Order: sequence, then C-alpha cells, then structure tokens
Amino acid sequence: MNYFSSDFKLGILGGGQLGKMLLAETQKLDIQTLVLDPSNEAPSRFSCTLFQQGSLMDYDTVYEFGKKASLLTIEIENVNLDALDQLEKEGLPVFPSPKTLRLIQNKGTQKDFYVQHNIPTAPHQRFESLSHLKTSLDKNLLAFPFVWKCARFGYDGNGVKIVRTAADLSNLPEVECIAEEMVPFKNELAVIVVRNVSGEIKTYPVVEMEFHPEANQVEYVICPARISTEIAEKAQKVALQTAEAFQHVGLLAVEMFQTKDDAILVNEVAPRPHNSGHYSIEASYTSQFENHLRSILNLPLGNTDSKVAGIMVNLVGAEGFSGQVIYENIEKIMAIDGVTPHIYGKRETRPFRKMGHVTIVNQNMAEARQIAEEVKNTIRVIS
Amino acid sequence: MNYFSSDFKLGILGGGQLGKMLLAETQKLDIQTLVLDPSNEAPSRFSCTLFQQGSLMDYDTVYEFGKKASLLTIEIENVNLDALDQLEKEGLPVFPSPKTLRLIQNKGTQKDFYVQHNIPTAPHQRFESLSHLKTSLDKNLLAFPFVWKCARFGYDGNGVKIVRTAADLSNLPEVECIAEEMVPFKNELAVIVVRNVSGEIKTYPVVEMEFHPEANQVEYVICPARISTEIAEKAQKVALQTAEAFQHVGLLAVEMFQTKDDAILVNEVAPRPHNSGHYSIEASYTSQFENHLRSILNLPLGNTDSKVAGIMVNLVGAEGFSGQVIYENIEKIMAIDGVTPHIYGKRETRPFRKMGHVTIVNQNMAEARQIAEEVKNTIRVIS
Repeated sequence: MNYFSSDFKLGILGGGQLGKMLLAETQKLDIQTLVLDPSNEAPSRFSCTLFQQGSLMDYDTVYEFGKKASLLTIEIENVNLDALDQLEKEGLPVFPSPKTLRLIQNKGTQKDFYVQHNIPTAPHQRFESLSHLKTSLDKNLLAFPFVWKCARFGYDGNGVKIVRTAADLSNLPEVECIAEEMVPFKNELAVIVVRNVSGEIKTYPVVEMEFHPEANQVEYVICPARISTEIAEKAQKVALQTAEAFQHVGLLAVEMFQTKDDAILVNEVAPRPHNSGHYSIEASYTSQFENHLRSILNLPLGNTDSKVAGIMVNLVGAEGFSGQVIYENIEKIMAIDGVTPHIYGKRETRPFRKMGHVTIVNQNMAEARQIAEEVKNTIRVIS
Repeated sequence: MNYFSSDFKLGILGGGQLGKMLLAETQKLDIQTLVLDPSNEAPSRFSCTLFQQGSLMDYDTVYEFGKKASLLTIEIENVNLDALDQLEKEGLPVFPSPKTLRLIQNKGTQKDFYVQHNIPTAPHQRFESLSHLKTSLDKNLLAFPFVWKCARFGYDGNGVKIVRTAADLSNLPEVECIAEEMVPFKNELAVIVVRNVSGEIKTYPVVEMEFHPEANQVEYVICPARISTEIAEKAQKVALQTAEAFQHVGLLAVEMFQTKDDAILVNEVAPRPHNSGHYSIEASYTSQFENHLRSILNLPLGNTDSKVAGIMVNLVGAEGFSGQVIYENIEKIMAIDGVTPHIYGKRETRPFRKMGHVTIVNQNMAEARQIAEEVKNTIRVIS
C-alpha cells in the first residue's frame, strides 16, 4: 500500500488536540486526512486535508464519513460504534477495532475483561444504576469506602468519586457504574504500548503522573518514572499483557497504580494517543503520534526510547478566568533551555480547560523537574 | 504582543517544503498563517490558515497579500522586493528585511558586502553580462580556471559552473554574473545563525555537507561536522560576524568552505530556514523552524544544542523516472531505529527534484553515518 503523496485517505474521528498532534505526523509524511468533529472550532480543522463538522455519535454521520476514508482511526473513544461495526463489516480497516472500543467505552466491561484475562486490577463490582449500588450497600454486599465510577463517558476526573459515607452518594447521577476497592498506592504510572497490524509490539518507558489536587487533572508527567528497574519492568510487562489481550492495533495507554506493597494494578486504558505520552514529541526517538500512525498503517514501529529526560506540564485554564485566552508569561518560559509550549488552538479559556501543554527536556532529570516547577509557577492561562 | 490563539496573522511568501516545516511550528503554537505561492499544489497549502495562489514576483499581488498580514516573512528569496519596501514603509514588520534580501538576491552585491565587512570570502569579479566577462578574459584581467555564477535566481547548483577553458563558456546565459577564484577546499560547512528583533543571537553547531557528484545537490548533512573544535569555533565566529553585519532578523544559513590550509571562506548565505538545518527537527532542542519563528516574533531564542547526532539525507527523484511518485522501500528504512522520513507533498517526481528528506539520529555518530548510507542505498524515489 502506498500511503505517501497518494490518494490514500486516513479518516480520523475527533478533531481535538490529540488529532491535531497526530496530523503533524500525517503532514510530515504527506498522508491525506479527513477529520470529523462536532465543533467548527476544533483544533484539528486547519491541519487536515478535509475537515467535516458533524456528530461523532450519530450513526449516519459516522457511517457516511467512514465511506470516504481508506482507513479509519479515532482520537476520542466516544464515537458511534454501530457505524464502525458496519464499516468494518463492509471491509474498511478500523483501528483500534470497534470491538475493543466497545469493551473500553464501558468501565464495567473493561474491568471484567481484566479479570477474565488475569490482568491485575483493583477488585470491583458492577451496578446497572446508583439504586442498585445503594441496594448492595443496604444488604452489606458493598462497604465504605470505595471508588465510584460512572461506567460511560467519564474523563479527566469527571465521573469518579471517592465514597466514604452515604452522604457522598447524594449528588451522584442515576447511571450505570462500578464500585472499586480503594487501594492505597504510592504512584500513578502509565505505559504506552504500540502494536501494529502484524502484531509487532513495543512499549514506551514507564512514566510517572502527578495530579492537581483539586481538578484531578494530570499536572506533571515525568519520563522516565523515578522508580526501580524492577517495578518499571513489572509495569511494562503488565502493559504488554493488556495490549496483547485486546489484540490491540494502535496506541494503548495503560494507566496503573503502584500500590504501597509494590503491586501493579491496571486502572484504565485509553486506546489512542494519550496525555501521558505528549512528552514523546520532544523526548523520544519516535513520538507517540508517529507510532500510532505507523501501527495502524502496518508500518514498522519506530524506536520508543528517549533521547533525553522529559517532563510534561498541562496548561489548564486558571480559576476565575473565562473568555479569549491569554498565555501570561509565555515568553518567560520560552527563555528557558529545553522548554517547548504547545498551544492547542482553543480561543476561549475556562477554569481547568486543557488549553495546551509544555514539554521540558533535559539531559538531567533533576534539572528538568526543577524547570518544570518553574514553568508551572510562571505561565498562567488567563483571559 | 499576543500571537497565540489570537487574531495575529503571520504572512509567509512561498509555500514550498520550507514553508510547510515552518507551519508545523505555527500550528504547534496556534499562530494564524497566510501563505502565498504561485502553485495550487504547493506543499504548504494544507498546513496554513489561509492559502492564496499568486505570483511572488508581482508587485500588486505581494503588496495586497502583505496588507492582510500582521508580520511578513519568506521561505524563498526571490520575491518582489519593491512591494516589501512599500509595506515596510507603511509600518508592516518584514523579516528578514527587504534591504537584506536585496543584497542577498544578487550574488554580486552579496560578495561585495562580504568584502566591505571584512568577511572572509573567495576573491571575485562582477560582470554586467557574459560578454563583459569574455572581454575581461580577452584583456587578461581574468584567467582560467574560475567559478562562474549567475548573479540572480540560481539555486541548488543551477547557475554555477566551473570554467576551465573558453569552451566551458559556450552554453552559459548572457546574464549578470560573477567569476570567483577557485579555492581548493577540504570541506563544505554550514552554520545556521538565528538573531531576533532585539538582537539576541545564537548559532547552531557546524554541519558538514556532502554533495551528489552529478546533480550538485546536498546528499548528506552531518551534525556536528567531523572537524576540530578550533575550526568549528572559527566557522561559528565567521557566521556570527556575517549575521551581525547584515543586522539580520530571522535565520541565516551561512555556507562556508574550509580550505586546504584551514581558512574559512563564506560561500553564500540563505536568509531563511535551510536544507542544512533540517536535521534540527529531530536532533536539536529547538528546530531551525521554531527558532526562525521565535526570532521574527521577537521571542526568546530556543536552545540550539543537539540532543543527539543527526544526519540528513535528501530524497531526490531518481534518474529515469517522472510522474506520480512512489517511495520505494520506505518501510524498510522506517524499520531502522532513529530514522524519520519527511515527505514534502509533491505528487510528481522528476530526476533530482527535492521530494523529501530523511533524518537519522543516534547517540553515536559513526553509527548514524553507517545508517545514513544504508538509508541512501535502500530508498528510491521513483514513479
């Protein structure tokens, strides 16, 4: 198959920042792209060959869009899977597969899948609705504390709540959910796995994630994670096992907990380029976006090793500001060696909205970590 | 000035591969861009905010285009300078300045400029036309051998000829030209200098260039050049001197000869991102394209050091092939660690046409050099 400067057309469902960064790679290789996104202001709109505004959840829209593409991929999980099933049935390659997306879209089936495949994960119970969960509590089949997660459409901390008492349940929606055992952990880790159509598979180094205490969004992603080689190997092994179990094609970001007693438990996966791999644009031999592209096109995978240490700081809208965005002090952080801002292209900021990220690379991790803190304390996303 | 996700519009004259790679950086920072290029098939057409087809040499077209921009830059030197003069007079920032472009557009005035500013360069004589040059030969004011260069519009080996006998003059055009003393050299080197509006200035490491024996196009660019520290420092000093003499704003690629007796002579300059800096996308902390952008926007310059050794191989159309391009064996080179192809987006190949490049990065230069040769012997640009 000739992808380069040819009539081949890669369709991408979703036109957010992940799509935009993926398009940097299709442009580099001159691969034609079609992008579907509900917003006419989507960050990807200027980087693709053809942009189409439309719903990702509407069967007809997704199906008709898919008919124009030579191969279909996603940058967001929440898309119409029935349309993808039909397109796949008609012979269109769809990576990752709708079957995998269906498993992952629902946290309940995702967790069941781990249990079935002996992938270590925190014990869980599934509930059709909040009422069913409450009934289980009443019957002492479930005990406080636990982590409540809505089964579908949660992201970035939405749809997750630590439940310690009955009062914590009062504001939760009446939706399908799971209750997960609270596992004390010392680290949140992630490993990005890439697997191509032929089954060639590679992992990126283990990264370590630090979350913002309030917004529950990742604040720093640190590569490599400052953990022992033994734990790193264990985490990579679990990540490989997970991607193999899904027979996944594309990138799979596997988020994990390192427990107090050094067990590795899979928290959840994302079947696409992921926030925890943004550092790879500057730090890795091959970025996660290029490797996603290579894998779905069944090209050989690129080297996932790092050239230098990398830390990623998310740029989220500051509290108290809404409206036309201003990146205050961006020129100050750009004056620091090894600092690269990425601006996603959203005109309007609002509190905790992901507006961009900054990568800090350095030969020396301690120095990178210090600069990352300086960056975080200097730049502000205001209006 | 707020450039990011704002109404600021960067105008770029020229939409070739240099423009396309520059646009990867404007997208990363979400800066709006307008591109003017004579071809509707220009590689940049899908990467900018607004693409306009039109002549770069037509006064009205360039002037009207410039009126829509907040700041103007170029990716090719041959543009209508009278229009840029007028735009600058009306207050539009134009970087590099039309004054510098005018000096550089003509190899005669460019060479005179070096002499005036004590910048080392091979001795030259200027001629209004080939007839005047022949008259000088007749009067013994000029002697064989020498290097004939047409004063304007030459590039990539076009417009340059080694003249050893009168017969070598027979096919040369009747245009303004220079005759340059032939200087025996052991290396062709280049140093990219970046200087911002405020005068902050940095150099990239010295690179070493190897040319294709027939096509006179660069075949390998090797960074860092395998030369002594002493020669490298001398070359960087000359490059800095040159950029300062022009009071240049933007990137200035300074091509130089290292003579047999280790003198450094400036050959010519390019006031823009340059083929000799493509390696920087993968190898440097800050690519030449990002630093060009930073410099013209008067942002702090990024670190020009390398993370790893880098070698660039040009992908030019193979002899004997014209038509819809095929990148034969591209999947084989992509299987090698640290190899990244860049496809410029030209559908039609023809012999020696620049179709793309491949960057090889490695911690070890000897290994990178070996891989570069393997890459060159494996991939073929055919039809």
